[in-house]
Amino acid sequence: MTKAIAILGSTGSIGKQTLEVVDQHYHALRVVALAASSNWKEMLKQIKKYKPSLVALMDPLAAEKLEQALYEQDINVTVAVGLQGLTEVATHEEAHTIVTAVSGAIGLGPTLAAIEKGKNIALANKETLVAAGALVMEKVKEKGVSLLPVDSEHSAIFQCLQQQDCQQARLLLTASGGPFRDKSLEDLQKVTAEDALRHPNWRMGSKITIDSATLMNKGLEVIEARWLFDIDFDRIDVLIHPQSIIHSMVEFADSSVIAQLGHPDMRLPIQYALSYPQRWDSQWPRLDLTELAGLTFHKPDYDRFPALQLALQAGRADGTMPTVMNAANEVAVHAFLDHKIAFMDIPRIVKGTMEKHNWVAKPKLKDIQIADQWAREFAEIQVNPHREVSQ
Amino acid sequence: MTKAIAILGSTGSIGKQTLEVVDQHYHALRVVALAASSNWKEMLKQIKKYKPSLVALMDPLAAEKLEQALYEQDINVTVAVGLQGLTEVATHEEAHTIVTAVSGAIGLGPTLAAIEKGKNIALANKETLVAAGALVMEKVKEKGVSLLPVDSEHSAIFQCLQQQDCQQARLLLTASGGPFRDKSLEDLQKVTAEDALRHPNWRMGSKITIDSATLMNKGLEVIEARWLFDIDFDRIDVLIHPQSIIHSMVEFADSSVIAQLGHPDMRLPIQYALSYPQRWDSQWPRLDLTELAGLTFHKPDYDRFPALQLALQAGRADGTMPTVMNAANEVAVHAFLDHKIAFMDIPRIVKGTMEKHNWVAKPKLKDIQIADQWAREFAEIQVNPHREVSQ
Repeated sequence: MTKAIAILGSTGSIGKQTLEVVDQHYHALRVVALAASSNWKEMLKQIKKYKPSLVALMDPLAAEKLEQALYEQDINVTVAVGLQGLTEVATHEEAHTIVTAVSGAIGLGPTLAAIEKGKNIALANKETLVAAGALVMEKVKEKGVSLLPVDSEHSAIFQCLQQQDCQQARLLLTASGGPFRDKSLEDLQKVTAEDALRHPNWRMGSKITIDSATLMNKGLEVIEARWLFDIDFDRIDVLIHPQSIIHSMVEFADSSVIAQLGHPDMRLPIQYALSYPQRWDSQWPRLDLTELAGLTFHKPDYDRFPALQLALQAGRADGTMPTVMNAANEVAVHAFLDHKIAFMDIPRIVKGTMEKHNWVAKPKLKDIQIADQWAREFAEIQVNPHREVSQ
Repeated sequence: MTKAIAILGSTGSIGKQTLEVVDQHYHALRVVALAASSNWKEMLKQIKKYKPSLVALMDPLAAEKLEQALYEQDINVTVAVGLQGLTEVATHEEAHTIVTAVSGAIGLGPTLAAIEKGKNIALANKETLVAAGALVMEKVKEKGVSLLPVDSEHSAIFQCLQQQDCQQARLLLTASGGPFRDKSLEDLQKVTAEDALRHPNWRMGSKITIDSATLMNKGLEVIEARWLFDIDFDRIDVLIHPQSIIHSMVEFADSSVIAQLGHPDMRLPIQYALSYPQRWDSQWPRLDLTELAGLTFHKPDYDRFPALQLALQAGRADGTMPTVMNAANEVAVHAFLDHKIAFMDIPRIVKGTMEKHNWVAKPKLKDIQIADQWAREFAEIQVNPHREVSQ
């Protein structure tokens, strides 16, 4: 029997790689709905190939262009628009599993809506758990759905745990260290978005690529792991591993360490989230460790990469602090991509926003939305000091 | 509730480390019977500390000395003798699990007797499976007992599999490569037993240390894995990994590789075989990958280490060939330890014995015993050409 899936973020890197997995396993997987931001041309191609019954685009202008093209080519598919459209895709009646591969906390609403409707989640949108981990995991439990990680590190940990309890365990999250891992603090002041986008190991979107360069990505992943595996921050370590072959590890009570290894290829964790508890064949190349010069490991440098420390602080503070840290980071990363700020301004803006935040200990969804909105506006001011902010 | 254990080979390296695990978990483990070869002084100490109700020594003279000492010190414990004594320990009424840590195919009889009596086996005596894998595994199935690996590589694979089927998987057995991994073929002609016994990574007995130096140990382990995990030889690879940190790996159908890592310390796999399916705390040091220079891997060199190839040939030939290969190797290794032959004579003697063997396809226990006996005599002649051999 085929499993019906919907993809949020189908024209992005994870979305496209999810469709490659569908290509390899078209007997097992069927695409019923797709959503994306604004790339209507790519969406049109995907509609022709995968024949979903519903698609959505966030951008109304792009949605209009898509509808025009569909009309001209006499293709019949419903096109929904905006966050409402995203949510319709996430709650599509036929969908068994939703692959949430949008970038940023915008994924939160549709993901919560999907869980509410009893959908299983293949989670590639870590910001959802960073911004509202407690709420999301509560809802997952209440609805009895499964939420499986697509992030390679969390997929690795999930594969290493294999239903074993991790309360007695320690998680060792590996990080490539990003393209600037060997740069001095002085050099880091001058790096550009273009430098960062030449990421050495993984094929991925621009937001996560910048997050990898600041090590913020690893901080977000620590928070994600805390929620996915219900484990204390004290039991999560970060390890720089430049070759990106060991995708993460679990150290059990008896000191035994279980690791998951593979080429840095997101299709594997995507496929595992869709095939679990089975493992399907794959066509991609096998790992040959004898071809590698060696696997090395070192401790992260918090001085050169303060974003990692900020994320850990936010995670430990809990409440609305991770929401705010994440929102400020999203704004700062986009400003860096737009050449409005320097690389080391990213952690500076995140830190400044965290310091000014009126923290809420046990936030409801509304509190999270307010904190997120405030943080975006406050961070925006730091990017562009001429704007005003409400609080 | 405590688990009652008996140890075959309690004065050897694995036996002593098993008792260290008992020391750490004296609430969970209780020693009811011990057997060893001839080290009666060590056995006396163990009797005083662990208070077993039965002990056995293979060597009758040593057993006599032990009884004398026990009598003088007014200690009351039954002392059994010889292979019969070993079998009594292996079938001790109270024992739940038998740790089989004797060296060589001599472990076969007692292990089969233990399984027959419904005992679970923690198997450190790989020669048992090499000599008679089909018979042993058949008996394990028939009696419904568990046979768990103590060998670090097989424990690693067992931990990586976690009840997942391995028929679609590939096993990657790692090998340190032994102390001579970088020596030329010319140098290998001249190495001595003393050179070999300076093994870099693991604390272990002299027979397995020589087997590690010839890579025969890895060949025996491939055959052991074939039986433990019911997997074809085509799906087992050997990888040289000098640091002995990754203890083995499993590559699944989807190309994901799961590995088990740890310090090279046999107490961990011993403990896991006794704690399974639980994991117990341990006091030994945690693995810190940042302290290591790096993990490297390369392919084994069959020209310099022909023993590995011979073992694989014997394994694939099946029937009585692995029995004969193993028996000849035991004789040759002891001759090398006794300075009667050179290092490269070990594979030469094994090969010569395999070539002259009258192979039996589906051997019964009797056939295995005959083949084993013949091979020992034939190999002995090659060590010392003045002896005669029967066939």
